[in-house]
Amino acid sequence: MFRLLHVLVTNDDGINAPGIHKLVEGLREVAEVTVVAPDREMSATSHAITVTRPLRVTEYRRFGEGVIAYAVDGTPSDCVKLAVDVFMKKRFDIVVSGINSGPNLGTDVLYSGTVSGAIEGVISGLPAIAISAAGFGDFNYEGAARFAAKLINLVKHHGLPEDTLLNVNVPEANGAKELPVKVTRLGKRRYTNVFDRRTDPRGREYFWLAGDPQDYHDRPDADTLAVSQGFISVTPLHLDLTSEALLRELNSWDFD
Amino acid sequence: MFRLLHVLVTNDDGINAPGIHKLVEGLREVAEVTVVAPDREMSATSHAITVTRPLRVTEYRRFGEGVIAYAVDGTPSDCVKLAVDVFMKKRFDIVVSGINSGPNLGTDVLYSGTVSGAIEGVISGLPAIAISAAGFGDFNYEGAARFAAKLINLVKHHGLPEDTLLNVNVPEANGAKELPVKVTRLGKRRYTNVFDRRTDPRGREYFWLAGDPQDYHDRPDADTLAVSQGFISVTPLHLDLTSEALLRELNSWDFD
Repeated sequence: MFRLLHVLVTNDDGINAPGIHKLVEGLREVAEVTVVAPDREMSATSHAITVTRPLRVTEYRRFGEGVIAYAVDGTPSDCVKLAVDVFMKKRFDIVVSGINSGPNLGTDVLYSGTVSGAIEGVISGLPAIAISAAGFGDFNYEGAARFAAKLINLVKHHGLPEDTLLNVNVPEANGAKELPVKVTRLGKRRYTNVFDRRTDPRGREYFWLAGDPQDYHDRPDADTLAVSQGFISVTPLHLDLTSEALLRELNSWDFD
Repeated sequence: MFRLLHVLVTNDDGINAPGIHKLVEGLREVAEVTVVAPDREMSATSHAITVTRPLRVTEYRRFGEGVIAYAVDGTPSDCVKLAVDVFMKKRFDIVVSGINSGPNLGTDVLYSGTVSGAIEGVISGLPAIAISAAGFGDFNYEGAARFAAKLINLVKHHGLPEDTLLNVNVPEANGAKELPVKVTRLGKRRYTNVFDRRTDPRGREYFWLAGDPQDYHDRPDADTLAVSQGFISVTPLHLDLTSEALLRELNSWDFD
């Protein structure tokens, strides 16, 4: 029997953000969609989970008929945990997190709530995709939403190895109908001028995080480079931060 | 000329936690120590950074003479960013984050504020160590603090490759003078019974994150296994989540 894929959608810009609405519009044509997403913007929450207070869940009806949706006063990770473990035990086929407003590239994925939503899916045993619009403001999300629909079917066809996910960044189409796709690795991104140092109206000093990104294109297949060249970047990630190279080296250290 | 190592210390249990005080006591015998740490407990904040509000910094004097210390109303990552970029540009030799109350093992390191403090050091170009007490309550931190002092000297001697750090978990000594050390990889840890579903005094439902850890010892050198056997676990981590295996596979997918 033919059965539609059942996709769990989350994000970190919050359930009212345009990116998640465009994503759901794109996916519902090819899949059954359930949304569990933060009730407000949670950017740069990274993989935070909420342990010090309880979570509240509210039904949300603005995705239109056929889309079950809940808003949660927590992070993307909280949302996926709740969705999988409480609401719909084992009923999802894949988790899609996005479409984020702004890129999640290179070293920055370590801070990304969007990516953490997808990682949480993987931890729950599901394949997962994080998808971000590599642009800000009035970005046209339609190409990204179309690519998400295509990609979930590719993932269904090929499968993903255990404990892996795909991190996707889609640049602005600028008139092109379909952008070319490149398989990439995480590039190296650092920031300069990290803080604005300011003085408040009462003369007390405060610091506001700012920073200009600086990309190091030391690898030709870096995601940062691919997006700057107009490619849709697809980066395979896994959950294991173990450094195999350093592991071998450490065995020669004298710890006693 | 002989110069003491200058260690930047942070944590995620907050600047008043016993673990960071024991760590500073242990390190100040062999190093110059500066502390920049959250002004309160930030557990499970993961790699969150604070972008939506400014950060305030307060001098803190309870580490005793010779230890410069600041409390920040932010996350461990915020603290390290501030320390390196604002207070003491390029003057540190190494970042040590901890001693955390409770283990940071296996998949859980993705949620760990302690590990994120060390990762932030690496992003700033410094070698870094995260250190956790693999026990709760009235843990005796002295063995862990001694090991931290030993380890910073080993790192000084051998160096660490770019973009890597060490994640250390120290079990309770239970009378042993010095625990044996094992070089490990991240094990796989999952949780069952993830949420408590409760009803508030007004009859509304809420959810509280709980969960029983379940370790999968599918590798003999898993950190989870080593700690359960009474070893101090030293796991080399890097910042790159790229999956090399899936990268090769993806190149055969038809994205067009």
